[in-house]
Amino acid sequence: MNPAILVHGGCGPRSEADGDDQQSRAGALAAAKAGHAVLRGGGSAIDAVERACRVLEDDPAFNAGYGAVLNEDGVAELDASIMDGASLKAGAVAVVTTVKNPITAARRVMERTRHVLLVGAGAEAFAHEAGLPRIENQALVTEKARARFAAERLATHGTVGVVAVDVQGHVAAGTSTGGTSSKKRGRVGDSPLIGCGTYADDRLGAVSCTGVGEYIIRVTLARRVLELLDRGLSPQAAAEAGLAEVVRLGGEAGVILVTPQGELAWATSAERMSRAWVTRDNETGSAFWK
Amino acid sequence: MNPAILVHGGCGPRSEADGDDQQSRAGALAAAKAGHAVLRGGGSAIDAVERACRVLEDDPAFNAGYGAVLNEDGVAELDASIMDGASLKAGAVAVVTTVKNPITAARRVMERTRHVLLVGAGAEAFAHEAGLPRIENQALVTEKARARFAAERLATHGTVGVVAVDVQGHVAAGTSTGGTSSKKRGRVGDSPLIGCGTYADDRLGAVSCTGVGEYIIRVTLARRVLELLDRGLSPQAAAEAGLAEVVRLGGEAGVILVTPQGELAWATSAERMSRAWVTRDNETGSAFWK
Repeated sequence: MNPAILVHGGCGPRSEADGDDQQSRAGALAAAKAGHAVLRGGGSAIDAVERACRVLEDDPAFNAGYGAVLNEDGVAELDASIMDGASLKAGAVAVVTTVKNPITAARRVMERTRHVLLVGAGAEAFAHEAGLPRIENQALVTEKARARFAAERLATHGTVGVVAVDVQGHVAAGTSTGGTSSKKRGRVGDSPLIGCGTYADDRLGAVSCTGVGEYIIRVTLARRVLELLDRGLSPQAAAEAGLAEVVRLGGEAGVILVTPQGELAWATSAERMSRAWVTRDNETGSAFWK
Repeated sequence: MNPAILVHGGCGPRSEADGDDQQSRAGALAAAKAGHAVLRGGGSAIDAVERACRVLEDDPAFNAGYGAVLNEDGVAELDASIMDGASLKAGAVAVVTTVKNPITAARRVMERTRHVLLVGAGAEAFAHEAGLPRIENQALVTEKARARFAAERLATHGTVGVVAVDVQGHVAAGTSTGGTSSKKRGRVGDSPLIGCGTYADDRLGAVSCTGVGEYIIRVTLARRVLELLDRGLSPQAAAEAGLAEVVRLGGEAGVILVTPQGELAWATSAERMSRAWVTRDNETGSAFWK
């Protein structure tokens, strides 16, 4: 079958867009194309998800990896998770400050430990032992993040995520973020939490979320969308119905979804959600506003 | 309506029981009674859950609070979460080393921050600011935990959890643990993760899990059991069907469940699961073996 990939670069209000719609669309498109190249070459969904997430993490237009927002102490604390729909194996890291590509650290946790989630100094020590270079936290910080911090802008959005299906019909999902600006030290949002920000199951599909993590956690949104799909809703209806539960609690979020058949769906309750895709019919596109 | 409460003290193989069945049953029963006293007095489910969890955390028979197992560095790293089924509000802490009662720290996160999960030093700083006394990590460590660590016993069980329904029909759940013995520093299991170790929703019920956290996370077991209930399975069938998904992946777990109508259910794939209860018919009991 033809592979497909869908990428998001976070959702949020119009007022936080900072006029970066062109940059954000271009970055999302570059990531989708990089992931699709892996899939087209016969690569696995999990390889494509990691590859596309790394492109997004390295792009300062997004709140993940380089360019992440700063916590209350002015430190970039990064979270990421990845899940393989074929095996239901998953890995995640949270509150890491010395790793350039947390999505790769998450994958190492999945593949090289008996654990799913490592946090803080323990996660950093593991990542560096696993071969990921140690970088200074300040090397992750952009002028824009510093200005945002100085202005006490409580931005919550810009998380990145990827869902993909490979030629074998296996799905995978990954999510990476710097969390919320001025968050408390040690705060963990939905992105590194399996079932909340990320879930993948070959029987149903793969989901990545963005938005106000605390509301997403309370709904276990990624898992919830797949349950709704399992109950017979269409991918689009499942994404929208899951989102409605977040909205009911007062939260704002966005969701992307791929099924093992290569159907793509997205939904957001925010004014914008940066996204890009390559469909199973080989159609490429990107969008920024809702 | 009459309140009800069900408590677990962890599940595991016969070989890890260490002959502590009497102590474990007595401790679980004391916790169930303490929680039930809160409920009988008209207290809320969330108050009862916190109260009963504190009794379990303070009891060295269990792998939570005082008596928790040690990580690879010989440190007790504690995790806990709590969720209120009425509001779907939740709080959690993970990898805290200086807090005697992590369940109370989790409740403070729920009530006094805009976050759900705080980890590590950030969680500790918050807990102490919120009035929880700072204790030395070694004050949490028992001779038994030290001996287990020295013998490199890879115990994974002894997590505690509580589910309760109050006179108003509101449900709540809480879970607290020291995690797995000799775990990597910074490892987070299912216990502090909403949807994995703990979930509560007044529309369905409240669940707490125990077992090998990594498998529970991959199934998002607490949420999964409630979904199965929502699909029309009985409480007992839902607990067993959720558990079967963990077993399918090769894991071992235990589940406790209460519905807003006061029905109680439990299931485990392990040889033992310490538990105690006070039913809506005011019947009190405890058990240790499956």
